[in-house]
Amino acid sequence: MSFKEKFKEGIITAKDFSREDIDYILQKGKEMIHNNKKADVLKGKILATLFFEPSTRTRLSFESAMYRLGGNVIGFHTGDVSSTKKGESIADTIRTVENYSDGIVIRHNLEGAARLAAKFAKIPIINAGSGSGEHPTQALLDLLTIIQEGHKLDGLNIGIMGDLKYGRTVHSLSILLSNYEANIYFISPKDLMLRKRDKDYLQQRQVKYKEIEKYRDILNILDILYVTRIQKERFADIEEYDRVKDFYVFTKKDMAETNDNFKIMHPLPRIKEISAEIDDSPKSIYFKQAYYGIPMRKAILAELLSN
Amino acid sequence: MSFKEKFKEGIITAKDFSREDIDYILQKGKEMIHNNKKADVLKGKILATLFFEPSTRTRLSFESAMYRLGGNVIGFHTGDVSSTKKGESIADTIRTVENYSDGIVIRHNLEGAARLAAKFAKIPIINAGSGSGEHPTQALLDLLTIIQEGHKLDGLNIGIMGDLKYGRTVHSLSILLSNYEANIYFISPKDLMLRKRDKDYLQQRQVKYKEIEKYRDILNILDILYVTRIQKERFADIEEYDRVKDFYVFTKKDMAETNDNFKIMHPLPRIKEISAEIDDSPKSIYFKQAYYGIPMRKAILAELLSN
Amino acid sequence: MSFKEKFKEGIITAKDFSREDIDYILQKGKEMIHNNKKADVLKGKILATLFFEPSTRTRLSFESAMYRLGGNVIGFHTGDVSSTKKGESIADTIRTVENYSDGIVIRHNLEGAARLAAKFAKIPIINAGSGSGEHPTQALLDLLTIIQEGHKLDGLNIGIMGDLKYGRTVHSLSILLSNYEANIYFISPKDLMLRKRDKDYLQQRQVKYKEIEKYRDILNILDILYVTRIQKERFADIEEYDRVKDFYVFTKKDMAETNDNFKIMHPLPRIKEISAEIDDSPKSIYFKQAYYGIPMRKAILAELLSN
Repeated sequence: MSFKEKFKEGIITAKDFSREDIDYILQKGKEMIHNNKKADVLKGKILATLFFEPSTRTRLSFESAMYRLGGNVIGFHTGDVSSTKKGESIADTIRTVENYSDGIVIRHNLEGAARLAAKFAKIPIINAGSGSGEHPTQALLDLLTIIQEGHKLDGLNIGIMGDLKYGRTVHSLSILLSNYEANIYFISPKDLMLRKRDKDYLQQRQVKYKEIEKYRDILNILDILYVTRIQKERFADIEEYDRVKDFYVFTKKDMAETNDNFKIMHPLPRIKEISAEIDDSPKSIYFKQAYYGIPMRKAILAELLSN
Repeated sequence: MSFKEKFKEGIITAKDFSREDIDYILQKGKEMIHNNKKADVLKGKILATLFFEPSTRTRLSFESAMYRLGGNVIGFHTGDVSSTKKGESIADTIRTVENYSDGIVIRHNLEGAARLAAKFAKIPIINAGSGSGEHPTQALLDLLTIIQEGHKLDGLNIGIMGDLKYGRTVHSLSILLSNYEANIYFISPKDLMLRKRDKDYLQQRQVKYKEIEKYRDILNILDILYVTRIQKERFADIEEYDRVKDFYVFTKKDMAETNDNFKIMHPLPRIKEISAEIDDSPKSIYFKQAYYGIPMRKAILAELLSN
Repeated sequence: MSFKEKFKEGIITAKDFSREDIDYILQKGKEMIHNNKKADVLKGKILATLFFEPSTRTRLSFESAMYRLGGNVIGFHTGDVSSTKKGESIADTIRTVENYSDGIVIRHNLEGAARLAAKFAKIPIINAGSGSGEHPTQALLDLLTIIQEGHKLDGLNIGIMGDLKYGRTVHSLSILLSNYEANIYFISPKDLMLRKRDKDYLQQRQVKYKEIEKYRDILNILDILYVTRIQKERFADIEEYDRVKDFYVFTKKDMAETNDNFKIMHPLPRIKEISAEIDDSPKSIYFKQAYYGIPMRKAILAELLSN
């Protein structure tokens, strides 16, 4: 079964990806870098971007990728300016918007939103972040970044740090990595450790991982440190947020402890968990990550939406 | 006089349409279904969508139609993010935006807004909903849906149910139908009956209509039941809204009472006036209505904006 | 050095423009009027419009210009719907969005925002309004309007009226005019006079200007009266605003005092500083100004973004 056929309902969860699927779409992403020949591959196609939660980079990244392939974009950006304010269900929104477009990118504060949308839609749905659940296309572009910046996924020593409880990019990334022989160090304050269900999944997949609170001890063995923001909007309790928000600040001094091939990543936006003083280091590749978002999403859109 | 010439100021009210005009534009809408040959008919043209009130489907439908014809779209989505917040008049907004575009779609909470806009604009204005007044392109796509789904407008037995007082789609639909030999049943709670001025218009046009409160008695004689949402945002008095909001809920049991050729429609968004349990019935065509919005609006845009 | 090369970082401040630069880009703007031959000059290019402050005309004007040249547009419209709400710095936003686009138009409430953006960006930045600072592309289209409507910049007698303290269009306009032999009358209530730093700049450039409070005495010697809105949103103190907001209202009676070649301009939106009763006068060219915005911005975009 081809990738296009397997994912004809869209990209909902990283769990749907086999190692073969990942390798295939990463290869397609790689081919999209510096490739302007495919500029008309989605000419006449329309992508709908339905962002029930605020977003800059994910939305603009998808829109840019769509335009780079010759397509067009419609959509709305928050729940406020849409019929959902009038009380409409996700199912109804989807069954309406699918008449206006060839594919739908959806971000929603509820974990099951993308899955629900796919259940009702006749066109592909792309999950662009579902609550504290998943963000699979971010994880794909993260992997593309890692391999393009010189590392292999098998044998990779990666630290994933920050809000592991609510961080959806972290969940999708560790699920994708479960297809490779990676060693994962989950670094977080106790309150923000990976949820049991996420750990159960990784254990079942025999992933080698450790949970730690301090990153300094392992800096010299890491290939990648993947830092995430503590997301204020996920905390029901503001005091819980205040207790952990400044738990990690990666500095120039930390960078000095790292290996030559070490790279530090971040899905952005960053608040202050990575000090701006290391922005110019060749080891800091978080803006390159944003760059790789375009070829990766071009590959995904071309795969799902082209004839 | 050609349609294009007659409507060179745009589509403001259903009252401007003769039977001949309606038949002409419905035929054009019909031709747009499954027609991708006209993909470049509006290449280089720009449509401005000025939505002073929130909207998903109408705005996205127009934008999709414009892109499908090769054109582009600019605009804003609510009064908040525009110069109107700075106190600008509609007349000034229009006289500015007409310099940036080839046609303007406007939704506004004031009934006279589209008319006013047309008075000042040198380019076509399309009324996409003016307060509790009209929504003529919705009514055109409703008619296209009715004829494409197997009914004739002459002799049609149609029930129009819900908020007939504030519902602008209802007003435009009944005005268009006044050009045909339709039998209209206006079904509403007493507080939400058609306003006197609307009834006066229909009487003057010798439309055969009845006003009733209960729909169950007439289900077996209807070809179409057109259900509308009770629009919370139109009520000055929240108690008035609470009294009527759950007045009608069309269920599976109701559906069992209908004729073989019966169809149920809704301009959407729906809250709970139609039970989701009948969504899969072939008699439920409210999502198809959204589908017909694209060819209908493509026809309108092509007619008004092409050279 | 070519214009393109000199402005490769973008259009940040009017102070960067020599007389030669202005004449060059005005000539390019002139050529864009009624020119549809360049419809594909920016095909495949993407412009990002980042509006941290509300805007209708400037944003739509840039977007329209971009589409008219065959390009596409991504962006966001206020700080609310973006990652900046999550606490991201301008520098990070820019270093992300530059990966998605070929040029960035930015409006921000802080004066230094565009300058800061240009410091971090590898692609051209266009300042579309930075706090109370500058709005250079507005000033360029103002000059294009003046020369297209029959006046010469050398020897021009121009009154600039309204909020000269906070008005960014005024600042950029007077800076551009400092390259010509214009006579400027700054007309404002005492509280809203030009700031010292702005006057220092003009004096240093040996600009001939006068500061006055009343415009009626000089109406018969003016070629152009450039009226600006008192911008409520710039006042920290609402009482200060209330004291000056209705200071000027230009009426039909005023118009009768003006010369045959007199023209009245306004960057819009207007509240009531120009009475609507003179809108139809051939001397009122504020809507034409909006019209000239398109060719001027097409010229700027083509110059900065084409290959």
